[in-house]
Amino acid sequence: MKTDEKTLRADRFLRACRGEPVDTTPIWIMRQAGRYLPEYRRTRAKAGDFLALCKTPDLACEVTIQPVDVVGVDAAIIFSDILIPLEAMGVPLTFSDGEGPRLEPVRTADQVAKLRVPVADEACGFLMEAIRLTVRGLDGRVPLIGFGGAPWTMLSYAVEGKTSKAFLDSRRMLFEAPALAHALLEKITATTIDYLQAQVRAGARALQLFDSWAGALGPEEFRTFALPYVKRIVEALRPSGVPFIYFCNEGSTLLADAATAGADVMGIDYRVPLDDARATVERAAGRPVTLQGNLDPVALFAPLPEIERRVADVLRRAGERHVFNLGHGIQPPTPPVKAIALVEMVHRLGRRG
Amino acid sequence: MKTDEKTLRADRFLRACRGEPVDTTPIWIMRQAGRYLPEYRRTRAKAGDFLALCKTPDLACEVTIQPVDVVGVDAAIIFSDILIPLEAMGVPLTFSDGEGPRLEPVRTADQVAKLRVPVADEACGFLMEAIRLTVRGLDGRVPLIGFGGAPWTMLSYAVEGKTSKAFLDSRRMLFEAPALAHALLEKITATTIDYLQAQVRAGARALQLFDSWAGALGPEEFRTFALPYVKRIVEALRPSGVPFIYFCNEGSTLLADAATAGADVMGIDYRVPLDDARATVERAAGRPVTLQGNLDPVALFAPLPEIERRVADVLRRAGERHVFNLGHGIQPPTPPVKAIALVEMVHRLGRRG
Repeated sequence: MKTDEKTLRADRFLRACRGEPVDTTPIWIMRQAGRYLPEYRRTRAKAGDFLALCKTPDLACEVTIQPVDVVGVDAAIIFSDILIPLEAMGVPLTFSDGEGPRLEPVRTADQVAKLRVPVADEACGFLMEAIRLTVRGLDGRVPLIGFGGAPWTMLSYAVEGKTSKAFLDSRRMLFEAPALAHALLEKITATTIDYLQAQVRAGARALQLFDSWAGALGPEEFRTFALPYVKRIVEALRPSGVPFIYFCNEGSTLLADAATAGADVMGIDYRVPLDDARATVERAAGRPVTLQGNLDPVALFAPLPEIERRVADVLRRAGERHVFNLGHGIQPPTPPVKAIALVEMVHRLGRRG
Repeated sequence: MKTDEKTLRADRFLRACRGEPVDTTPIWIMRQAGRYLPEYRRTRAKAGDFLALCKTPDLACEVTIQPVDVVGVDAAIIFSDILIPLEAMGVPLTFSDGEGPRLEPVRTADQVAKLRVPVADEACGFLMEAIRLTVRGLDGRVPLIGFGGAPWTMLSYAVEGKTSKAFLDSRRMLFEAPALAHALLEKITATTIDYLQAQVRAGARALQLFDSWAGALGPEEFRTFALPYVKRIVEALRPSGVPFIYFCNEGSTLLADAATAGADVMGIDYRVPLDDARATVERAAGRPVTLQGNLDPVALFAPLPEIERRVADVLRRAGERHVFNLGHGIQPPTPPVKAIALVEMVHRLGRRG
């Protein structure tokens, strides 16, 4: 690769986040360092379990860089889990294959009071070390994204103790014990701000906040229990100068509110066309906003010509100020060749002028 | 209760469905015959398991009528399960407490080819008998609603074999084997039409189609694999003359399309305010449409004054042509007094003139 091509690749994701002209549409893939890659499965086998992989900096670095080399994406995202800071707050956490995460549920005032607001550099030193190693390993090829979970999503994990479907216990707390919910959200927010600031100090060049379960909330609950805390995090990170991406998953009904959080980039799931999303987001934000998304990850199981038709449609609807991504994490059974083909298509079809 | 009050109660649900003037807003509650009621749990214990309760007409009749007496709702919905017709098509079905339904997954062309299109009066005679018993038992107090699952939702159960969270296998079929998906949807649609027609013949005075998993689909998949089959069902049932309710769950991004299915009433989940939903639905349908919904079921865990504030808000946003309901099924731990209070509030605050 020639030097100018290297520079173009290194810059295009951050330029698109800031709304600056790009040579072609940048792409990264949610959960790109993951089970669909044989390279990942080999490194994971070395680590033992999932949490050990998160906590072993050189292995976390290795899987973070794999998709940059293998798939050709324009940004890396540090390999970790959104529940890591909850564990640092004092919530015991385990992972089992096929079952997902298990936490000791936090439901009483006493349990909330006992939670720490940890210093991320100390409690999550392994993550900061993984970020530093990865930045060195990437050697300027592409920027590294740091991330955290949005407070409502973190609350739902803490209260449910697992990935939920109905979110009954966590949503019930909002209606039945709103003051307790706010107390928990305060602690999560303070933890998340320090956690993201530490990631920037360690070398993250952009940040994404995952609000994975925003879509479980009605509009009033979102405005009361989710949005104000996201706003505080966005504002606290603004002085860091790195682009901030807010992914409000299944949040199509919440987009107008979510856009007022102040993020530079709004991540959009696959359920809403990007032209519709842009109209809603930019009207609410009162400024141009970069959109990230939103091909349905399951579309990667279609034949290549059908994938290409859909990629072209996403690009056409997105217009300028666009970071291509899937509308949700890539699915483990996805053939890696499809991810590689996707990156090639986006770069080819997204080329400017 | 005086005769005119009895007549008002007996009529207000169907009048609201048809857009005719009513004395007050009618209400029924999704999953109103269910685990939150001690009366239900007693009858269920007599039946043994859930499926036996569905298939024992006098017990199904008993639990169907309970909320009419205990909670005071303005319509009954026949106690059954949306998976009953899948079993009649030849898919073995079991239920276990806490685990939900289990079906033998239908994933190959051979498995789809082997499915029957059953005659509902024969294969589901127990349901038709339960409807006849219930109509006699209700004795004109309130009308009885029959129901079925929408074809995409039924396909997802058939392919996944259980309640899913990611819907990977069913959504993958749409992209990877669209012709097979259409073949399965054709059989489900033919089955559903006969199944709903039989319920009307047995005495159902309205029908609801539950598209529980519509929200898992992107807009293009909804238009290709869900909507056309819903339209065919609505059209096939139109000559029956009973109001048709389409509940497109988590379908806020799909509402404009869903409204073109031709249903008399659109069921709206708790994620979209009814004034917004009405604007979208009526613009797309090109006619006035009755809306059904949409208090968050978890709001019933709030204190009574907060519930009343929210009921008033739903009524205000709904305007005329409204059937009050929750925006999803009532949750099993809900105290029955809250459901009783809800019905009282809706009737009091919804009173006309």
